[in-house]
Amino acid sequence: MKKIKPRTLSGFMELSPSNQVYFDTMLNKLSESFSLYGFTSLVTPMMEAAEILLAKGGGETEKQIYLLQKGDTELALRYELTASLAKYVALYYNDLTFPFRRYEIGKVYRGERAQRGRFREFYQADIDIIGDGSLSVLNEAEIPSVIYNAFTSLGLKRFAIHLNNRKVLNGFFEILGVCEKAPLIMRTLDKLNRIGKEKVYDILTGEFSLSETQASELVDFISYAGDPFDILSKYKGKNALFDEGAQEMKLVAGHLKEFGVPDSHFKINLTIARGLDYYTGTVYETIMTDHPEVGSICSGGRYDNLAGFYTDRKLPGVGISIGLTRLYYILNEQGLLSKDILSSPSDVLIIPMTDDLSHAISLATLMRAAGLRVQIFFDDKKFKVKVAYADKLNIPYVVFLGEDEIKKGSITIKDMKTGEQTSASPGLITAGLCEKIKALRDGAPIMQ
Amino acid sequence: MKKIKPRTLSGFMELSPSNQVYFDTMLNKLSESFSLYGFTSLVTPMMEAAEILLAKGGGETEKQIYLLQKGDTELALRYELTASLAKYVALYYNDLTFPFRRYEIGKVYRGERAQRGRFREFYQADIDIIGDGSLSVLNEAEIPSVIYNAFTSLGLKRFAIHLNNRKVLNGFFEILGVCEKAPLIMRTLDKLNRIGKEKVYDILTGEFSLSETQASELVDFISYAGDPFDILSKYKGKNALFDEGAQEMKLVAGHLKEFGVPDSHFKINLTIARGLDYYTGTVYETIMTDHPEVGSICSGGRYDNLAGFYTDRKLPGVGISIGLTRLYYILNEQGLLSKDILSSPSDVLIIPMTDDLSHAISLATLMRAAGLRVQIFFDDKKFKVKVAYADKLNIPYVVFLGEDEIKKGSITIKDMKTGEQTSASPGLITAGLCEKIKALRDGAPIMQ
Repeated sequence: MKKIKPRTLSGFMELSPSNQVYFDTMLNKLSESFSLYGFTSLVTPMMEAAEILLAKGGGETEKQIYLLQKGDTELALRYELTASLAKYVALYYNDLTFPFRRYEIGKVYRGERAQRGRFREFYQADIDIIGDGSLSVLNEAEIPSVIYNAFTSLGLKRFAIHLNNRKVLNGFFEILGVCEKAPLIMRTLDKLNRIGKEKVYDILTGEFSLSETQASELVDFISYAGDPFDILSKYKGKNALFDEGAQEMKLVAGHLKEFGVPDSHFKINLTIARGLDYYTGTVYETIMTDHPEVGSICSGGRYDNLAGFYTDRKLPGVGISIGLTRLYYILNEQGLLSKDILSSPSDVLIIPMTDDLSHAISLATLMRAAGLRVQIFFDDKKFKVKVAYADKLNIPYVVFLGEDEIKKGSITIKDMKTGEQTSASPGLITAGLCEKIKALRDGAPIMQ
Repeated sequence: MKKIKPRTLSGFMELSPSNQVYFDTMLNKLSESFSLYGFTSLVTPMMEAAEILLAKGGGETEKQIYLLQKGDTELALRYELTASLAKYVALYYNDLTFPFRRYEIGKVYRGERAQRGRFREFYQADIDIIGDGSLSVLNEAEIPSVIYNAFTSLGLKRFAIHLNNRKVLNGFFEILGVCEKAPLIMRTLDKLNRIGKEKVYDILTGEFSLSETQASELVDFISYAGDPFDILSKYKGKNALFDEGAQEMKLVAGHLKEFGVPDSHFKINLTIARGLDYYTGTVYETIMTDHPEVGSICSGGRYDNLAGFYTDRKLPGVGISIGLTRLYYILNEQGLLSKDILSSPSDVLIIPMTDDLSHAISLATLMRAAGLRVQIFFDDKKFKVKVAYADKLNIPYVVFLGEDEIKKGSITIKDMKTGEQTSASPGLITAGLCEKIKALRDGAPIMQ
């Protein structure tokens, strides 16, 4: 028979079993963090009618969408989770209770050019809070707490949540009289850290024809090194939108301590814009302290209207998104995944030393009832092969069950890391193991 | 602006937030059950090169596959999880440790005709054990234990695992001398319960031209009402394959008690064949006692070769599959989902009664650190609206935090079900809630 060469499509991440444990752990810890803040889980379809996903338009993204035809219907694979949320909220508006807090962690698809670290199938982890008509700015103040809790639960320590407010930016552009150039300017702002003040100034005065005063005031504003509220207060009273934004920023920053976010993990960063049209209030980025070159690992912001394509109802919201597949890829590449996590498929391997397996099976049943993950080595192989199996899979404990143990009613367990062997009754051994395994399971996937 | 009508494609299940909690709980409980037996989690891509998914061929299924084109590559959405597993095992053979036990719970796609209860996107929950060259029959004996554990953890009580052995069937066909008609006969076997012995006999003698002796011996065999091992022993010694199958069946049945499967949940059923070519040993079906009309809710069996399209290596295995979306749909339709499960997005809603929200936020942070899911009602609405919010979302506890409470350093919590109110320190209230919520979370999603 002619054989087919097995292969996985490029741009599709496929993990080894032990790496999958890391990924699943990250996913579960994020779900738990989101749940603590009252976000409910949603799973929307991977596929929608093409018109639903193309409603938003947007040139570059549209080219990347996977389209397919089935019967008369033009279908598309989702390329982000927000379009599905907008449809969901518009479709089930009457059944939902607002503010509506949901998280969705799911795969999205983009036909990107194949490139190292770029994925065509990847997980996004999104949370959004949607209001009906209005939504308190306090929801914007809570988001940094969710971000802090989520990354801390993953084991990440050295990161900072950067935030800005679009009202501050837009108000400031009004003050300077450069509103019609705002889109151009905003694309330049976040270059400050990479190319420096002088080059930004050159672009503003050269390419975008700002006056020298406008350019230097703008550069001084976004690069202000002192307390950001000092520079904000300097412009107070000159523009209503600016003042509103500055007040929102104060409110957001002012509640962080109560929300459990330490000062060390938070920064007002006046260069953040996050795109042109969508966001209207607080905007967020999250930067790994030792790897700023990676860019933001969690971003989002406040928007005025989620579902304008579907309804005249105003549905303001605030949300953030984590590119989970990319984050996992980066952490793995940087060697930041903890070695301590329990990535074996089982907690215990039982190796029967007798022909009759009744005792081994009963023991496994007892241990499973206590919550331990147990495998019995059934196949007829050499003793060495059986022990090597536990070794290769990093199974932390092995039970050898021979005639002697069965007669005595005790079992012998070996800690595969220390080599230490203990004999006791099955009940005692099981209870002891439950404690030890619980500690091993509590490990966080990231070690820095 | 012209509005688009929001819609979800037919055949795509999209759940309400509270129903999603049931679905997620089922999914998580299945994962936990599978893990107890040493199955490791895999997440394979939703899309493969078309040649990979079409390798197996198979007319009807092939027509249902969603195909798409991107650049030069013909792509396909997976329509089951086994093809992806076969590719995975063949591709990573050198990195895997055998026996390889994996579970995957993921979405698959079939362009079925839209029909009530038929889905185009649905979850399958699969477990498989793959051996390298050989695989002990004891793995087949363990599968009913996984099935029993899985459904019991979901809360399902009234079900039975039916099993048969393909060696017994094929050996019996050899004994009767009807091998070349085996495919026809097998399609008829499982009609026994629906159409009765006489009609099966008529089909066998009429349509398939079996002799009267052949037909009556066959009907007597598969419908034998006594201990199945009696009828098996009647044919002992007549055919090697039959004897091997009978012995395997005895071994599988003989270990069930030790594996924790009660007699009440297990039945040898000689009418089960499960398709024509794939399975070669033990085959499984799982029947809801009160709803046999639903058919098998978990099926599978032993097969000789997982990845014959890719490799000459013999990779025998045993596996089962649960159609999770369909199972959820049936349970919901039959009213079998438990009312007791905690389906609210939060455990506690904090309703601040003061303008300054600092205390409310600090309290939420304290409670979240203890593992409680807490939401603060931020928006400026009437008191009635705030309480109605908790009511609509079935949030079980509400904290009212006014000047009085803040001064006294105590909080008042209301049990929304009983109406009972308790006042105490935040620490005491939090500890008490953790206990109560833990009990609520332990509920199983199915109630029968």
